[in-house]
Amino acid sequence: MRLVALTTDFGLTDPFVGIMKGVIASRAPEARVVDVTHGVPPQDVLAGALVLQHAVPYFPPDTIHVAVVDPGVGSSRRGLCVETSRALLVGPDNGLLSLAAPPADVRRVVHLTEKRFFLPRLGTTFDGRDVFAPVAAALATGTPPDALGPAVADMQRLELPAPVRDARGFRGQVVYVDRFGNLVTNVPAVALPAGTATIAIGSARIHGVSSSYADGRPGELVAVRNSWELLEIALVRGSARSHLGVDVGEPVIVEG
Amino acid sequence: MRLVALTTDFGLTDPFVGIMKGVIASRAPEARVVDVTHGVPPQDVLAGALVLQHAVPYFPPDTIHVAVVDPGVGSSRRGLCVETSRALLVGPDNGLLSLAAPPADVRRVVHLTEKRFFLPRLGTTFDGRDVFAPVAAALATGTPPDALGPAVADMQRLELPAPVRDARGFRGQVVYVDRFGNLVTNVPAVALPAGTATIAIGSARIHGVSSSYADGRPGELVAVRNSWELLEIALVRGSARSHLGVDVGEPVIVEG
Amino acid sequence: MRLVALTTDFGLTDPFVGIMKGVIASRAPEARVVDVTHGVPPQDVLAGALVLQHAVPYFPPDTIHVAVVDPGVGSSRRGLCVETSRALLVGPDNGLLSLAAPPADVRRVVHLTEKRFFLPRLGTTFDGRDVFAPVAAALATGTPPDALGPAVADMQRLELPAPVRDARGFRGQVVYVDRFGNLVTNVPAVALPAGTATIAIGSARIHGVSSSYADGRPGELVAVRNSWELLEIALVRGSARSHLGVDVGEPVIVEG
Repeated sequence: MRLVALTTDFGLTDPFVGIMKGVIASRAPEARVVDVTHGVPPQDVLAGALVLQHAVPYFPPDTIHVAVVDPGVGSSRRGLCVETSRALLVGPDNGLLSLAAPPADVRRVVHLTEKRFFLPRLGTTFDGRDVFAPVAAALATGTPPDALGPAVADMQRLELPAPVRDARGFRGQVVYVDRFGNLVTNVPAVALPAGTATIAIGSARIHGVSSSYADGRPGELVAVRNSWELLEIALVRGSARSHLGVDVGEPVIVEG
Repeated sequence: MRLVALTTDFGLTDPFVGIMKGVIASRAPEARVVDVTHGVPPQDVLAGALVLQHAVPYFPPDTIHVAVVDPGVGSSRRGLCVETSRALLVGPDNGLLSLAAPPADVRRVVHLTEKRFFLPRLGTTFDGRDVFAPVAAALATGTPPDALGPAVADMQRLELPAPVRDARGFRGQVVYVDRFGNLVTNVPAVALPAGTATIAIGSARIHGVSSSYADGRPGELVAVRNSWELLEIALVRGSARSHLGVDVGEPVIVEG
Repeated sequence: MRLVALTTDFGLTDPFVGIMKGVIASRAPEARVVDVTHGVPPQDVLAGALVLQHAVPYFPPDTIHVAVVDPGVGSSRRGLCVETSRALLVGPDNGLLSLAAPPADVRRVVHLTEKRFFLPRLGTTFDGRDVFAPVAAALATGTPPDALGPAVADMQRLELPAPVRDARGFRGQVVYVDRFGNLVTNVPAVALPAGTATIAIGSARIHGVSSSYADGRPGELVAVRNSWELLEIALVRGSARSHLGVDVGEPVIVEG
């Protein structure tokens, strides 16, 4: 029995996630369900795609990842099951699944059309409950992906804003902010200058890239290679977001 | 081994829910525990009752639902185990269990008096840990409900404020607001006028009932039949609560 | 297969906890994982230590408790596995584990040095993923603690600020505030005067210690013996924190 992992923007205040788990428990009683997070900012498909991309490698092979950040629920956007070398990804075709499924790694994209695997529909506002949870349960109990609908050639893809490289370094931006107020950028850690770099963000200038938060003194801004292998700006024992007053989209310039 | 589902207002900031799970794991090691939600607004018994009502149908038959929203903990209010055709409901006798247990569906109401199933009491401020979790563990390991105490004839009932029907339509109100700021009303979707309805809420007038959020443009207010089969007011890709500045209790008038 | 319980300050907004669960599921597929809480205030080691101390007794014997509140991640602070009569505690050596491991109850302290049990390191900012989760998985699959590194004689200890006793009673302070705004003090309930006590906090005076919140009227401040066997100040059906405008550190004087 495989693992079902859930990534949504449903939050934990309402019973939406609990109801999805009820559906999975009803249809795949032996399946084990793990939460990746339900704290994706509401309707922020890019943040959800980033989260999924960085979570999938840490889960067992063949985990069934259900992801729902779905501002277009009820529209004609398709539901998909994407099979990669690493996982089965189930969710809306709005780009959410795409960062975790680079084209070279995609084995099959299935359009979820076989309604016999869905819940009897009451409405069109909660596909997490009515479509994606029961499809995950079907997969968990051995239904092969190609029974869920026809294979299709394409899927919506979302590109992370790419950092711009020039002679002096990188011009990137903040793409994610975590609970601690750490600012995750789109600048890959492997591409950072080997020697001394200067990182400019907002009104601040940071000299050098640390290997950990602990390299700075409390209250000091540091630039670190983070756990997603991206450049991250942090305030030691504090919140860089609050300290700098910046958020997702803030430009970051790396020179050196 | 049956499923234990938890619905509380304990939040996830403190270890209260974790401690309840520790108690269940200690006394019923094989039981599987699923969270419905712990985000019921603090001490809001009606919101908790609504959540439980709409979650129970999606869980496997005979799930043991423990619900704790309990402003009267430590008072003389009783603890109950309510057996319905669908589930066992365990929690305080303050109306919390009542919307999930319509009178015609109640098979038995047991007053939890048999202290041998409780934890040795340290205080009277945390019945979730001391009474309801160990009782759920007892049920999960096969204790029949009638071993937990005497059957009683009555339980506290909570009535959802009913919408008022008149010649022109319904006068209802907002009864729940979700994380997205969607406004759930007490107007049943099945009772909506078949033709074109006009929905008035705050200063807004909405024409027609959509089948999904996707029927509107971003920033537009829509009225939808929601996943609980109730009339819901939503702002496409935004928060109707913030946009309208309204909350639970706001009147909603449906005409047409 | 033993239970793994998680206590962190990671919150549930980001995928950090989910990724730790992915690592555990990958390396110990049969392990059961339970959340104590991930809502410890960011980098508040004392709050985390209190939470762990009060949660451990309610979990099955030999539960593997992983705790991560770790402002010094990436520094030279050690990682530990502490074996007590009751549990295995895994986490940073910064005092976090110490309240749950009173000296008389410690059987062994192991310094986590055996990197073959860690994840291949990508960075030094997320030991929860790279060190503590895989070590917990190793323990859950039967690795004995002493295979994880050398036994050491000492560990960082954190002392709860002790209440000061004088002829008139206790001078203590608020050490934890829960979701409901209840103010937990460091005054042990067993030490409260047997007769009528007067509790002074902020501008308020409370007469007598109640056995439950229900002894007061809505809106009234009460002093109760709480579920952690400590003196707690609560506002019946409200938030004492908001009502009094006080927080952790606020002095509390008990006389009587």
